[in-house]
Amino acid sequence: MISGTTKYYAQLADPVEHVKFPGLMRSYFDAAGLDIAAIPLHVAPVGLADAVQGLRVWQNLLAVGVTMPHKEAIVPLLDSVTPRAAAIGSVNEVRRNSDGTLYGDMVDGAGFVRGVQSAGHQLKGRAVQLVGAGGTARAVAFAIAEAGAKSLHISNRTMSAAERLAADVADLYGECAVTAGEISLAGKRVVVNGTSLGMAPTDPLPIDPSLLESGAVVAEVVASPPQTALLAAAAARGNPVVSGQAMLDAQVPMVFELLGMEFPGWLD
Amino acid sequence: MISGTTKYYAQLADPVEHVKFPGLMRSYFDAAGLDIAAIPLHVAPVGLADAVQGLRVWQNLLAVGVTMPHKEAIVPLLDSVTPRAAAIGSVNEVRRNSDGTLYGDMVDGAGFVRGVQSAGHQLKGRAVQLVGAGGTARAVAFAIAEAGAKSLHISNRTMSAAERLAADVADLYGECAVTAGEISLAGKRVVVNGTSLGMAPTDPLPIDPSLLESGAVVAEVVASPPQTALLAAAAARGNPVVSGQAMLDAQVPMVFELLGMEFPGWLD
Repeated sequence: MISGTTKYYAQLADPVEHVKFPGLMRSYFDAAGLDIAAIPLHVAPVGLADAVQGLRVWQNLLAVGVTMPHKEAIVPLLDSVTPRAAAIGSVNEVRRNSDGTLYGDMVDGAGFVRGVQSAGHQLKGRAVQLVGAGGTARAVAFAIAEAGAKSLHISNRTMSAAERLAADVADLYGECAVTAGEISLAGKRVVVNGTSLGMAPTDPLPIDPSLLESGAVVAEVVASPPQTALLAAAAARGNPVVSGQAMLDAQVPMVFELLGMEFPGWLD
Repeated sequence: MISGTTKYYAQLADPVEHVKFPGLMRSYFDAAGLDIAAIPLHVAPVGLADAVQGLRVWQNLLAVGVTMPHKEAIVPLLDSVTPRAAAIGSVNEVRRNSDGTLYGDMVDGAGFVRGVQSAGHQLKGRAVQLVGAGGTARAVAFAIAEAGAKSLHISNRTMSAAERLAADVADLYGECAVTAGEISLAGKRVVVNGTSLGMAPTDPLPIDPSLLESGAVVAEVVASPPQTALLAAAAARGNPVVSGQAMLDAQVPMVFELLGMEFPGWLD
C-alpha cells in the first residue's frame, strides 16, 4: 500500500505497456519488507531530458531502471557513470543520490553472464558467437570478454557496428580474441542472440539452428516471450538454452546492491 | 498491482510523510475498477519548476494533486488555470492533457462548501467568521462568498493579508458583505478555522470557544488530526462541527470530474 513514506523505483520506457522488470522488483522489495513501489514511467525520447531533470528533484525516488529506447541517450544527462557504462556507451540502472545527483551503471551484460552461469554454463575459455551490436549486445559483448571468453565473434546486419564493437571490446580486454564478420557457428560453444529478433512472432531466426554444434549453449537477451523461436529450435535439437529472463532475474540482486540494501534471496 | 498499463495520480508535497489524499483517491480508483496508482511525490520548493517540467513528459500521468507548500508557486508554471484558481492565486489539482499541457484548478474552497453542506448545514444567507488568510483560507473565502453567505468577516494574525483577501473577494462577489478585522463571534452562524492551527497538539486554539453563539456551526480545514482541539471544544459546548476531512472527502468526486471519469459513489 503506497503512502507518504513510500520510496520509489521507477522505470523509464517507451513503449511502457509490456515492461516486466518493475513487477519483478516489486516481488523482491515486498519479500525484503521494504516500502518501495516499482513504477513504470512512460517517457518518449523527446521528453527524456526534462524527465531526467524531474528525477533529480523527486526526493522519495531511490533509483530508476532505464530501458528502450533511452539506454544510450540518458548517458550524457547523468552526473557520473561507471567505467563499464562509459565503455559500453549506455546505462540501464540509475541511482538518485540524496543530493539529487544521478549515478548510472550498465548491468545488462553482467546480468547476462550471471544468468548463463546460474544455468550451470561457463564462458571462461569458451569460443562465443554473438549476433547483434546494438545497445544490449554491446553490454553483453563487454561482459563476455570480461568473463574470460577465449574468443568472441560478433555479427550484425550493419557490419560497421559489429566492427566498431569488436574494436572497443578488444581495446579493453586484450586477452580475448575479438573479431567481427558473418555468422559462423563452427567451433562455437556459446551462441548468443543479442538482437531483438524473437520478440515478434513473425521475426526471422537470428541464426540457422541446423548449424549449431552439438552441446553448444544458446543464450538469449529477449525475455518476452520467455521461450523464443530460437530457444525452441535449439532445445528441439538438444542444445542447452538460457532464456532472456535469466539475464533479468540476475539483475535483481544488482539493484539491491546499487541501493545499498540486502538482497532477500531468490523467490520461487 | 502496478504494471506497464497503470496510469498515475501523483501528489506534490513537502513534507510528504503525512499526506492522506492519495490513499483516499486509491480507495476510490480501486472501487471504480480503474488501474490508477496514487503516488505521493516529495519535491522541495527549489525543485518545483524542474518537477513540473518532468510531469509534462510523463505520459502515463493523468493528474497531480498539489499541497503545501506548492499551491501558490505552481500557478505560473502551468499552461492554464480556472478563473477561480486565478482569483484565489493557487491551485490544488492539475490535469495533464495528452499533449503534455497542464491545466490547474483550486477546489479546496468548493470542497469545503460541499463538506459543510453534506453535513447538513447552509452557508447561503449566513454571517460567517473566517480565521486565516493563507492559501487554503483564500480558497475557502471565495467559495463561502460564492455559496451566498450574507457576510464574511476575515481575521488573520497579519491583518494586511486579511484586508487584501477581503478586498479580492468583495471585488468578485459584491452581494456578500466582506470585512476584515479582529475576530468577532457575535452574530456569526458559521465559524471557520482556515489556519493550520490544530495540526500540532501544542497549537493554541484559533478562537475562544466560550464566545461561540449557541448553534453556530464550527468548521475546520485541518484534516489531521481528524478531531482538532477546536472541534472538541466546540462539540463539548453543543455546537455542530464539520471536520477538515469533510473538505477532503468532497474533493474526491471533483478529481473524477477533472479526469472525465465516472465517480463510483461514496464508500463507507
